[in-house]
Amino acid sequence: MANRRIRDRVHEIVFEADTPTGKWFDIGLLVLIVLSVVVVMIESSDDWYSHYGRIFIVLEWMFTIIFTFEYILRLWVTIRPWKYALSFYGIIDLIAILPSYLSFFLVGTQYFVIIRIFRLLRVFRIFKLGKFLTEGDQLRSALIASRNKIMVFLFTVTLLVVIIGSVMYLVEGGTNAGFSSIPRSVYWAIVTLTTVGYGDITPQTSVGQFLSAAVMIMGYAIIAVPTGIVTNEMIAGASGRSRFTNTQVCRYCAREGHADDAIYCKYCGGRLNEHK
Amino acid sequence: MANRRIRDRVHEIVFEADTPTGKWFDIGLLVLIVLSVVVVMIESSDDWYSHYGRIFIVLEWMFTIIFTFEYILRLWVTIRPWKYALSFYGIIDLIAILPSYLSFFLVGTQYFVIIRIFRLLRVFRIFKLGKFLTEGDQLRSALIASRNKIMVFLFTVTLLVVIIGSVMYLVEGGTNAGFSSIPRSVYWAIVTLTTVGYGDITPQTSVGQFLSAAVMIMGYAIIAVPTGIVTNEMIAGASGRSRFTNTQVCRYCAREGHADDAIYCKYCGGRLNEHK
Amino acid sequence: MANRRIRDRVHEIVFEADTPTGKWFDIGLLVLIVLSVVVVMIESSDDWYSHYGRIFIVLEWMFTIIFTFEYILRLWVTIRPWKYALSFYGIIDLIAILPSYLSFFLVGTQYFVIIRIFRLLRVFRIFKLGKFLTEGDQLRSALIASRNKIMVFLFTVTLLVVIIGSVMYLVEGGTNAGFSSIPRSVYWAIVTLTTVGYGDITPQTSVGQFLSAAVMIMGYAIIAVPTGIVTNEMIAGASGRSRFTNTQVCRYCAREGHADDAIYCKYCGGRLNEHK
Amino acid sequence: MANRRIRDRVHEIVFEADTPTGKWFDIGLLVLIVLSVVVVMIESSDDWYSHYGRIFIVLEWMFTIIFTFEYILRLWVTIRPWKYALSFYGIIDLIAILPSYLSFFLVGTQYFVIIRIFRLLRVFRIFKLGKFLTEGDQLRSALIASRNKIMVFLFTVTLLVVIIGSVMYLVEGGTNAGFSSIPRSVYWAIVTLTTVGYGDITPQTSVGQFLSAAVMIMGYAIIAVPTGIVTNEMIAGASGRSRFTNTQVCRYCAREGHADDAIYCKYCGGRLNEHK
Repeated sequence: MANRRIRDRVHEIVFEADTPTGKWFDIGLLVLIVLSVVVVMIESSDDWYSHYGRIFIVLEWMFTIIFTFEYILRLWVTIRPWKYALSFYGIIDLIAILPSYLSFFLVGTQYFVIIRIFRLLRVFRIFKLGKFLTEGDQLRSALIASRNKIMVFLFTVTLLVVIIGSVMYLVEGGTNAGFSSIPRSVYWAIVTLTTVGYGDITPQTSVGQFLSAAVMIMGYAIIAVPTGIVTNEMIAGASGRSRFTNTQVCRYCAREGHADDAIYCKYCGGRLNEHK
Repeated sequence: MANRRIRDRVHEIVFEADTPTGKWFDIGLLVLIVLSVVVVMIESSDDWYSHYGRIFIVLEWMFTIIFTFEYILRLWVTIRPWKYALSFYGIIDLIAILPSYLSFFLVGTQYFVIIRIFRLLRVFRIFKLGKFLTEGDQLRSALIASRNKIMVFLFTVTLLVVIIGSVMYLVEGGTNAGFSSIPRSVYWAIVTLTTVGYGDITPQTSVGQFLSAAVMIMGYAIIAVPTGIVTNEMIAGASGRSRFTNTQVCRYCAREGHADDAIYCKYCGGRLNEHK
Repeated sequence: MANRRIRDRVHEIVFEADTPTGKWFDIGLLVLIVLSVVVVMIESSDDWYSHYGRIFIVLEWMFTIIFTFEYILRLWVTIRPWKYALSFYGIIDLIAILPSYLSFFLVGTQYFVIIRIFRLLRVFRIFKLGKFLTEGDQLRSALIASRNKIMVFLFTVTLLVVIIGSVMYLVEGGTNAGFSSIPRSVYWAIVTLTTVGYGDITPQTSVGQFLSAAVMIMGYAIIAVPTGIVTNEMIAGASGRSRFTNTQVCRYCAREGHADDAIYCKYCGGRLNEHK
Repeated sequence: MANRRIRDRVHEIVFEADTPTGKWFDIGLLVLIVLSVVVVMIESSDDWYSHYGRIFIVLEWMFTIIFTFEYILRLWVTIRPWKYALSFYGIIDLIAILPSYLSFFLVGTQYFVIIRIFRLLRVFRIFKLGKFLTEGDQLRSALIASRNKIMVFLFTVTLLVVIIGSVMYLVEGGTNAGFSSIPRSVYWAIVTLTTVGYGDITPQTSVGQFLSAAVMIMGYAIIAVPTGIVTNEMIAGASGRSRFTNTQVCRYCAREGHADDAIYCKYCGGRLNEHK
């Protein structure tokens, strides 16, 4: 009985953020995750690794042990541990600790160890409990609402860059090493149309420069399309939200959708909320 | 009689997507088109071609034969074959197969064969039948509605880059090989104004750098214009649509265009839908 | 008397576009201007000039003579010639022809002759008479309405780039030739913040790369501001326009601002237009 | 008594801009600040410094003495000098003059002196009193309203670039010096996602180019998000403002928030303004 009570309390701390202890646990975890990711990032730099390699190894093991303890705790407090272990965050939590242990058995793991960086995704769990939840939800719902339109847009852009790339391959392919194959030309078309413009591949012939100038101006106009889509959905979402956050239902004709400041039903004229 | 019936059914499968068989036909065709375009793209790469050249030739002929069979089928089931053959998609379908046959008679066709990539346009026919139809239509109508404004915008941008290019030719032309002629300077102006910024041509003098900084900030502000245009049209389209998706017609004065939640006609005051 | 009538008619042809002859005159002029600008542009290219130099000189003189004749015509038909000569388009018209004549007396005019390219501005006069007038006006009024906001924005951006440039000069100045002075660093800051990104000056130190990454993300967010301004004004303009394009005035209470499809006055309930 | 009156008047001139003298003082100060910043900028350029070094030193001391006098004046007229001295603008005013005096005692101050450029921030104080106040306020309130959404957006972008950078480090790290560590790869990811595209680090392998093409198209779509956020807030702000600029209060139920053209209270039906 006492055991179950402890498990309940630990669950509250580890998985929720309603209690002060739970909040401090989350903040501590957030700091640890960010620190461990910074360590993985710096570790990859040869200069730093050759000088401070030992410190990094110690730090890394420290983080791994803490995260392992946390993982076991999460398994212990969950009523159906397998459900947690196979959930999205369960797998991310495992990926956060597994590579360090596997590096004992595997050689040449310099690159393999990098997947520890996916620890970063754990940050999302903590943020889900914060005040940014609503904001994130609004952004997400606007993006979801515009998903189909954005897919049509991306599909059209894909077609466009394949055709532009092929034409540029015809024009520049013979003389310019940068356009030696269609995939490379398509890569150039994407670099240009998205206005990234590395400059690693540039047109050399007059015809090529003229065509790419046309592509740039096209890209300049095309960027308006996703912006228009998302802005439109956001405004629709904003007005939709403000219209329906009012959940009043008319008692006389049972219809919804009244404005926030309405007193009388706009459909039958009945008073909306008599006790207000 | 039986012949006509078969032709009707084949027409339904080949041209439409209402029946399950028609849908599977479309999906199969989509996969084939994408595969054949990928083959054309990879084929253009010398590395791959020298190693796997034979496989590519076999694959290419396989695609050509299937598409030829499909083309003949389409001609056969259409009541007026010439109308199909001379339609936009009829010509695209022909371009998809002709180059391979012509490569027998023509030498040095490496580049010529590239037009097979226009097969990709056939994908649009399939998508026209899909659920993305509405989304695409909304985007298209927003772009068509803003067509005139975008043309005025592009016209102004064209004038701007010619004048900027000429001024930069005066400033940098003498000392900087990148600005050796006005067309090249105009090319630079487009690269800069659209924020692509290859860096293949960059100003060297202080005056040139000052001017190009001004051009960049101008371009930064100008990009707001097409975005504003398209967003505006999309919002207008969205509100227009939501207003008119209601197809109610007043029974008393026979006028349309009522709001979704209207009960009474806004023109004559008659009740809109008595059984509602 | 006859002389005055001819002048009236010529005025109608040369300055207006209401008559068929006036329209043809405008189209002819448009073609000539574009052609002459293309000639000036190509002329600046050494390759083309050395081969076809003579043709260019002949073409240039042809254009100059036609434009001179047109200029004299415009002076003749105007009642107060000086007013025209000193107007914006009058000066542009003079700039379009003067450089060619001056090239007789002046040596080393290769660059000087470039100002002929300002002929291009004459195109605006013709477009003012076309169907793009309304579209251009809408864009212009949206830009004028957002002028003050855009100035505040540009002013803030200017301050930002000066400060960013100075900080980067402190960080990179000692080791990186690209950041050898504050003006150059400010130039780099503008290239980066506007997402042009030539790559002619790039940060080399870790601190510099970290700072410039922050600048880029800032620029990514800042670009939303002008877009928001212009879009906002365009939507405001659009809704304002559609509300007030209806010029109906209530006969009973004399108030305006009714919706396009209103039958009854929204202020007093009087019928708006009885004969409709 | 006379002393106090002079202080009052000087306070009005130095701190406010309601009187003509106060306005001229502000304009003069604005010119001096801009000039002194231009001098600091040009001074940093070795070419100019070696030629006109003396003039710069004289100018710099002139500005320093004027600003010192102004600083003392501001201290004198303020009733609680310490409050001013420790305020934001008080510190900025000190930073504007201190470096010049410290350069007597400190050696190797070439870089140290740069902080004088923060003088530029003083311009904001002057602008706060101008007609751009409203415009700036509208921009600021739109940005403040969208602050949380933009933070969620920046946080997501940060996560994205860390993960993209790590993946690219895995793909390109072995063969491409540009991707030699994760921080460098993250720097590349930011350069690419924000469409800056320096081109100092570019993918070399086919897989890397394919991945970065995906990143670019992603960045192309992602840029729509901050634009949508800011535009949405600006439109919300604009409509909110226009709705509430009408300060009418119903005389019967004492409620506000009526539309500009309302005649009757929307809450109780009472006439809003009988004398209108």
